[in-house]
Amino acid sequence: MSDSRAIGIFDSGLGGLTVAKEIIKVLPKEDIIYFGDTGRVPYGTKGADTIKRYALEDEKFLLSKDVKLIVAACGTVSSVAFEESKNLPVPFIEVISHSVKSAVKATFNKKIGILATSATIKSGAHKKQILSFLPDAEVYEVSGTLLVPLVEEGYTSKDNPLVKNAVENYVSVFKENNVDTVILGCTHFPILTEAFKEALGENVTLINMGVSASNAVKDTLARLNLLNKQGGNHKFFVSDKGTTFKNTASVLLGEEIDDSSVETVDITAL
Amino acid sequence: MSDSRAIGIFDSGLGGLTVAKEIIKVLPKEDIIYFGDTGRVPYGTKGADTIKRYALEDEKFLLSKDVKLIVAACGTVSSVAFEESKNLPVPFIEVISHSVKSAVKATFNKKIGILATSATIKSGAHKKQILSFLPDAEVYEVSGTLLVPLVEEGYTSKDNPLVKNAVENYVSVFKENNVDTVILGCTHFPILTEAFKEALGENVTLINMGVSASNAVKDTLARLNLLNKQGGNHKFFVSDKGTTFKNTASVLLGEEIDDSSVETVDITAL
Repeated sequence: MSDSRAIGIFDSGLGGLTVAKEIIKVLPKEDIIYFGDTGRVPYGTKGADTIKRYALEDEKFLLSKDVKLIVAACGTVSSVAFEESKNLPVPFIEVISHSVKSAVKATFNKKIGILATSATIKSGAHKKQILSFLPDAEVYEVSGTLLVPLVEEGYTSKDNPLVKNAVENYVSVFKENNVDTVILGCTHFPILTEAFKEALGENVTLINMGVSASNAVKDTLARLNLLNKQGGNHKFFVSDKGTTFKNTASVLLGEEIDDSSVETVDITAL
Repeated sequence: MSDSRAIGIFDSGLGGLTVAKEIIKVLPKEDIIYFGDTGRVPYGTKGADTIKRYALEDEKFLLSKDVKLIVAACGTVSSVAFEESKNLPVPFIEVISHSVKSAVKATFNKKIGILATSATIKSGAHKKQILSFLPDAEVYEVSGTLLVPLVEEGYTSKDNPLVKNAVENYVSVFKENNVDTVILGCTHFPILTEAFKEALGENVTLINMGVSASNAVKDTLARLNLLNKQGGNHKFFVSDKGTTFKNTASVLLGEEIDDSSVETVDITAL
């Protein structure tokens, strides 16, 4: 048996491509439909009601494409609009719970750092879930909002003074408190892995939400007999192509995106 | 005669409050209705078609409030959606042309710098207009996209290392080319005036678009007999209240905003 329907992945913008990249790595025979809400990006600085409304519209779009599973490849949506997404007619994978499990497994001293957008930090989602596994864990939460536009603008080198400065500033509380595991709680952040390693040192484990979520996607599809054995096409939809789409998208996905595989849609017109 | 209808001001978000501030300064007896599209901010990194669509929706909202004049308090809208806004049923003031006239008056050596969002720079609006007045001017255009989230996140002090670094980086081409006048072509940028002064030196004239536009608003209302003599109420609408609205808005407007004067609207539902 082989289910040829695509996996639907959505994000507030292009950050979710780091998750798509990991899913493609473990599931190369799956078709992927990605929607990035680049016309309204970012979500992470916006209010919960707005984020919930946007997430439902994004999911409705993916459902219109007959996907077999939906991935919220966005830390902000996963933490703020989780309840709203539980009643979808297809399996739903978010990026918080799996990354929390990875962090709980990885930590030795039970001191865990969370770096995410301000909306995600405000939701407290990571911290609540960590404490449900490890009630005596120390959790340090930092809102690293500025790192999103830095990555989107292509400032990603660990030697760039703006990157260095922002990253050092944000992780200082983790260093002061001897944290041994940090969840990169926004999908843009794995792009800055080298900068985080330099600032935190090699002994701190960095949790990439895309890696944790991609394994969950594979397990879910296998369990429900929904795997595809003959696919591998990737199609991208955005609500705005912007000025730097192709460059940013290629950096985040880790491979060149062909213009013919990208389509612009009006997400409020559905 | 006194026309009690409000002046409508809109922006992609809260940056336009720096323009509202200047309008309030020269027209304290006018009622103001401000709309900030905080649910879709920023515009300046998005594509022209999206920006035009959003601008028309914002204008439609202000018209539904029976305003007597509309100000696009946004460099991106003023440069990208200017043609679309010319047929409004009320007078329309944008922020580009008036700031260009101020710069043309201010320059001695005809070397002018433009610092704006990437969408504005891509439009070439400032440069075209400057060259129409001064065909032999040298115009240096820099896209300073990152300064928008810096200001929105409250990083505004000239001594903040991120601000210092970003500003120095962006203005270096102005310094190398001995520019004597710089248009701050995005409404967020006047908040960083001290940082610009420090990086550029006191001999470079900085053009604040809000100051130029506020005089144009006053002249237009006077010429058309639309001035109000008894108003002074200020009402704010946003498409998302976000997590930091009150703080950011107060910094940009230069006065405390009362919660009861702020309302959230669904801008796509009109």
